[in-house]
Formats: sequence, C-alpha cells, structure tokens
Amino acid sequence: MVLLEFSMSPFDKGESLSKYVARSLDIIDRSGIAYRLTPMGTILEGEWGEVMKVVTDCFEAMRADCKRVSTAIRIDYREGTESRLDSKIAAIEEKLGRKLRT
Amino acid sequence: MVLLEFSMSPFDKGESLSKYVARSLDIIDRSGIAYRLTPMGTILEGEWGEVMKVVTDCFEAMRADCKRVSTAIRIDYREGTESRLDSKIAAIEEKLGRKLRT
Amino acid sequence: MVLLEFSMSPFDKGESLSKYVARSLDIIDRSGIAYRLTPMGTILEGEWGEVMKVVTDCFEAMRADCKRVSTAIRIDYREGTESRLDSKIAAIEEKLGRKLRT
Amino acid sequence: MVLLEFSMSPFDKGESLSKYVARSLDIIDRSGIAYRLTPMGTILEGEWGEVMKVVTDCFEAMRADCKRVSTAIRIDYREGTESRLDSKIAAIEEKLGRKLRT
Repeated sequence: MVLLEFSMSPFDKGESLSKYVARSLDIIDRSGIAYRLTPMGTILEGEWGEVMKVVTDCFEAMRADCKRVSTAIRIDYREGTESRLDSKIAAIEEKLGRKLRT
Repeated sequence: MVLLEFSMSPFDKGESLSKYVARSLDIIDRSGIAYRLTPMGTILEGEWGEVMKVVTDCFEAMRADCKRVSTAIRIDYREGTESRLDSKIAAIEEKLGRKLRT
Repeated sequence: MVLLEFSMSPFDKGESLSKYVARSLDIIDRSGIAYRLTPMGTILEGEWGEVMKVVTDCFEAMRADCKRVSTAIRIDYREGTESRLDSKIAAIEEKLGRKLRT
Repeated sequence: MVLLEFSMSPFDKGESLSKYVARSLDIIDRSGIAYRLTPMGTILEGEWGEVMKVVTDCFEAMRADCKRVSTAIRIDYREGTESRLDSKIAAIEEKLGRKLRT
C-alpha cells in the first residue's frame, strides 16, 4: 500500500486555481479511493496502480483545456496492507503524549 | 503570507521514522506558528521568514544525531494577509457543492 | 510531452543509496526513453504513460527488496511535441545573454 | 553541506515562464554559490543557511511583481564537507560500469 500526495495546477489560467482543483477533487471523490484533502494537496491511499490511475485521470481532464500543467507527487510506500491515513498521525501524537493540530 | 508544507526524514535510522517526526512536531507545536499535521507532512502558515525559521529549527535538531536527512518543501505564496489553512478547502467544497474528506 | 523528474530511495538500507539508485538508472538507461541524470534525480521526457511506466518499473524493482520507499516526482506538461530537455536551458541563457553552469 | 534543488514559478504570468526563471538564475549566478541548472530546476550546494539565503533572494525578487508564486524545494543533507555535485553521478556510473546521460 502507498500513500500518495499530489498537487496539480495549470500555469496558464491565472492566480485563482480552485475551479481546476475542484474538478480533480470531483474525479477523486467519485473514484471511491481512500483520500484526504489538505490545504496543500490531496493524499490518496491504495496500491501503486490504483492511485496512479486516479492521478492520470486528473491529468487527462486538466490537459483537455490547459496548455501547461505542473504536478508534484510524493509517495510513501511501506510494506503491509493496513491503512496509514490515520495511524501515522496517531503514532506521532502517542510519542509526544499530546494532541496536535490536524 | 505563505503556506509551506514540508516533510523531513533521516535516511540512516531504519524504516520507522515516527520518533524523529515527533521531535519536529514538538518544535513546531511549541513555536506558536499556525500549522496542520497531515499523513504526509506538516503545513505551516506565516510570513516567509517565520516559516523558514521553523523548518530550519527542525533541521538543526535532526542533523544533531542523523548523518543523512531528506527534506521536501512546497510553498504557495499568494499576495494578501488572510489565512488560507481553512479557506482553500472551503473554496473547493463550495465549487463542488458538497463536503469532501479532509 | 512531459518532463518528469523523480527521485526514489529506500529508507531501510542506511545512508548510502547509490546501489539502489544505480539499479533504477540501469532500468531507465535500457528503456530507451530520453533522460538526464542530475545530482538530485533523473529527468525523463516522453508521453505521460511512457514516463510513468518507467517510474513504475523502477518502483517494482525497489520494493522487491526494500520495506519502505520514498518517491518524489515533479512533472511539467506543456502542449506540443518538441523536446525541451535542452531548449528550456537554452531559453534562459538566451534571455540572460550568457552561459550558465549546467 | 547540503544539495538543494528548487523550482520557483509565478502562477499569474501565463504559460511562458523563462523570463522569471532567468531573473532567478541571474541572482544565483551572481551569488557565487556552487550550482547546476537542469531542465527542471536549479541545484545549489553549500551550508543550509547559505543556500536558503539564495532561495529567499529569488523569492523576494519574484514576489515584487507576482501575485502568486509556487516553490518546490528538495534538500539532501549528508554529514561531511566535500562537494557532491559531481561525485553522486560518478558513484552511480561507477556502480553500473558505464557512462549515463547527464
């Protein structure tokens, strides 16, 4: 299982990007994949091929009407099959012995 | 104001990294800066110099006992002074007309 | 056509990573795709599906014997079919009117 | 010593970005810091504070006339003082026993 965070934006549509980000989130949300939206990107969880397919679908939708698109992806693979969307944060809070802003 | 997301990890301490991440979060949480912890990193908000100082403090703590450290940073600067930690997500949900997983 | 830069490293193999990076470069070099190796990653050029296949092949090889793998990818898509591996640098040097360190 | 790769671009200036990238490279080239320009960013080498100062100088120049700026940074710190701008590539080529595209 991997956690994949990505951010994908057009360069040729001006400074307000929420219209294009919303379209990607619509694709992600309807895909059924486990995800979290953050102020800096979207985190997907699944097998490598599953999460890459969702990123590719978002890219195909964006390049349909954008001439230049920038994408940043970070992937954390760890052997095993359990979800880490919640457990990574819990492990840090447990080590510190207090709740953090999430 | 900038939003800065970063992830900082040692390469020479094995596959479990939560001890080192927890130490960074302790620095961040005590700094008083606005932040959010996500499953893939920590998002700071403030002026460029303020957020860079916190990242630098985390780095100094990590290199004190780690021989190799990898850091990834993404920064979104937008003119203006209002917080976007919550408003960026709200703008996307508003465009889609429904709540998303956050 | 996209330019895709990526860096892929195991977290559970200690601080010296060149053995694992060399294996990825062997896959990339034999794939026939256009690429450049830099001190911080490898830049691939091709269609989205082509470059993603090479990254996926490198990941499959790495997870065969690594328990935790970190991957960072940045992709610059621009409409059109001409190679930008050399032309992006040339455009900057032309604007400055002098040669840069490359 | 750290290797720091960064890419910094405005979102509100259209799809052609070389004018703004050239301005950053002028700052970098005149700073005297060790660097390499690649098709996907610029790699700086020096102490943490030195390389961060150059990135900050580039940001200050860009925000003077750009309303939204995106910055991606990756940093590879390794204990020691020798330059790795050339040696990292050499180590991979040595392991593979052949020259690569650089």
